[in-house]
Amino acid sequence: MIHDTLEAKRDGKTLSEAQIREFIDGVVDGRVTRPQTAAFLAFVFNQGMTVEETVALTMAMVDSGDRLDWSQMDGPFVDKHSTGGVGDKVSLVLAPLWAELGCRVPMISGRGLGHTGGTLDKLESISGFRTDLEADELQKVLADVGCFISGQTGRLAPADRTLYALRNETGTVPSIPLITASILSKKLAEGIDELVLDVKWGSGAFMQTHAAATQLADMLCRVGRGAGVMTRAVLTDMNQPLGRTVGNAIEVEEAVACLKGEGPGDLATLTVDLIGDPRARSLLDSGEAYERFCRMVVAQGGDPNSPLLGSGCAERVVTADIEGTITACDALRIGKAAFVLGAGREHATQAIHPGVGLTLHKKVGERVGPGEPLVTMRVADVGVERAEACIKDAFQVSPDE
Amino acid sequence: MIHDTLEAKRDGKTLSEAQIREFIDGVVDGRVTRPQTAAFLAFVFNQGMTVEETVALTMAMVDSGDRLDWSQMDGPFVDKHSTGGVGDKVSLVLAPLWAELGCRVPMISGRGLGHTGGTLDKLESISGFRTDLEADELQKVLADVGCFISGQTGRLAPADRTLYALRNETGTVPSIPLITASILSKKLAEGIDELVLDVKWGSGAFMQTHAAATQLADMLCRVGRGAGVMTRAVLTDMNQPLGRTVGNAIEVEEAVACLKGEGPGDLATLTVDLIGDPRARSLLDSGEAYERFCRMVVAQGGDPNSPLLGSGCAERVVTADIEGTITACDALRIGKAAFVLGAGREHATQAIHPGVGLTLHKKVGERVGPGEPLVTMRVADVGVERAEACIKDAFQVSPDE
Repeated sequence: MIHDTLEAKRDGKTLSEAQIREFIDGVVDGRVTRPQTAAFLAFVFNQGMTVEETVALTMAMVDSGDRLDWSQMDGPFVDKHSTGGVGDKVSLVLAPLWAELGCRVPMISGRGLGHTGGTLDKLESISGFRTDLEADELQKVLADVGCFISGQTGRLAPADRTLYALRNETGTVPSIPLITASILSKKLAEGIDELVLDVKWGSGAFMQTHAAATQLADMLCRVGRGAGVMTRAVLTDMNQPLGRTVGNAIEVEEAVACLKGEGPGDLATLTVDLIGDPRARSLLDSGEAYERFCRMVVAQGGDPNSPLLGSGCAERVVTADIEGTITACDALRIGKAAFVLGAGREHATQAIHPGVGLTLHKKVGERVGPGEPLVTMRVADVGVERAEACIKDAFQVSPDE
Repeated sequence: MIHDTLEAKRDGKTLSEAQIREFIDGVVDGRVTRPQTAAFLAFVFNQGMTVEETVALTMAMVDSGDRLDWSQMDGPFVDKHSTGGVGDKVSLVLAPLWAELGCRVPMISGRGLGHTGGTLDKLESISGFRTDLEADELQKVLADVGCFISGQTGRLAPADRTLYALRNETGTVPSIPLITASILSKKLAEGIDELVLDVKWGSGAFMQTHAAATQLADMLCRVGRGAGVMTRAVLTDMNQPLGRTVGNAIEVEEAVACLKGEGPGDLATLTVDLIGDPRARSLLDSGEAYERFCRMVVAQGGDPNSPLLGSGCAERVVTADIEGTITACDALRIGKAAFVLGAGREHATQAIHPGVGLTLHKKVGERVGPGEPLVTMRVADVGVERAEACIKDAFQVSPDE
């Protein structure tokens, strides 16, 4: 049967729900070998999967583990997932804001590899903040506060961990059905009713083009709905970073400012768009969601009034060479600058520096004079010169005629 | 680099010789993981390989091990490979016949899985015959006799063993470039100048259609020549078995008869066609090659005058139900009949019975009367009824108008 399934996908045929479920069960219990799983991923990469097949794959992955159960409290239960970008601190603003609107947000987040840490790394720059809540703690925090942001538990979509590791190993990461099933299986295991997806495109995003991001967003929505969850997607330009900060603690500072009604416009606007409720804008402007954020931090063991970890970094300013208008602030290069300063990691076991990062004084469309600051870097002991070079490369200034 | 190679083949690009060589070296030394190898095989299955890529793959697989070296004697060094069929005992006739014509035939053969044993299994029904000759014995037998038929040594194309096992595991066996590289790497490692390929098609063959066999034969010839060996191919109909016997000892008997000039016409004709030298026919008719066969048997430890192993089987005759002309004697079903009697194996470690097998009294185009024998079975203790059913299914008799 496993062989028939492999050969059918190899030959571009459509698999049945039973075939997909048997295969994924086999991946988890060992009846399917790792080479067979790798070949399956390769065949799916080359031959694709229909929406129905991807729904079956997603559900089989969800059912490979537990689904969080919130039957002891009222909903609705909602969450957001972003495909990832540079300076993306939306989750920190969105979770308490959505909770303030009366929804419950059981956000299981990742650490991730990349230019900066993931949402969990950013939150861990808050003194005492725990991202390893146990099942009973998740219940209590969601009931009391209305939101949490915590890490993967071992029993949520375990098939995804095996598949994800093999996708990295075999060059089969950028496959729309495989990306879709990976994202949705983890989110559906949260036991949510509604999901909004922030699908980013551009130089700093996983999907480089608007067309590719549209295709992924479309598949995510169809499969999410097919799996019984109200699913929406917002396409976001990630050619320049989101907001004005890139790093870990420095992004928490910006998120806090945004929650107090003092955040940068693009971050606030995107967060409100993702929630999709017009009341979100005024709640954000009034600063009322900040208190909810503080309650979440306290409930997860953190102290919202302590200084963030990693403070005491030296500052270095990168200035413009010429006068003119900023025409590009390349997200990928800015992300690289933060990475070489120590804000991100390449391997899951690497440590990150919570304090290093960047503040962007200028973004696309703004004017700059010669010698005027473009970026202030918070630096530790590594990568200062390389980061400066990345930043210089990232900015394009068009001189006046 | 391994990742670039995987992604390039994934995306249908043509790999360079250096990329292919690095990958195969990595398969052997462990830098390429088994899941990565499996994904590579899957991508090659879906995206194909050019002749040049397949030459590079073949040569990299040859160079993963040793190449036999015959520099201590004169050539030319020649060999034949068959893609395998039911009743195919050509190697036993061809090797001594070609040697009788002045060529040296260093035939490394396989045991194989399937309806009957491989060439080595058939030869091992000769009392004392050894198929595990050491390197110095191979040198001596080839120098003295002009031919040997022995088993794989551990150091010939070791990459093929890894790839072959993974192809079985991942459903990537029937890929023309992978089949081609697997066959040719093992044959080129024999250190030969000339290779003839018997590419079979039809119900009892690996390639079911003439078109598929033609495609494989074309690729084998192009790649063999690209790798510097004179390569020819003969396409052979395998819709009915070759010759009149199917089994192990029973096929040795038929090969010996053929070498004495008393063999069935199709076996003799195919052997002569494969050698491609008009003198082969008269040598076969005169029985002169039989003495060469006996010298090879003796040189490999066997006794050509002892009874073959497995003698003493009971005989059972399968008869025709109606009168008419035979229009089909399906090779796959006849092979199945021999298999259920114990002539073949499914797993590499299984034992075969040397003595069981079939004699076909009738083949396609011949007339049969009601109650007249179609097949005599040599049977041991298993499968007699199932074999009889397979044989009845295999024959189609068209009654007279």
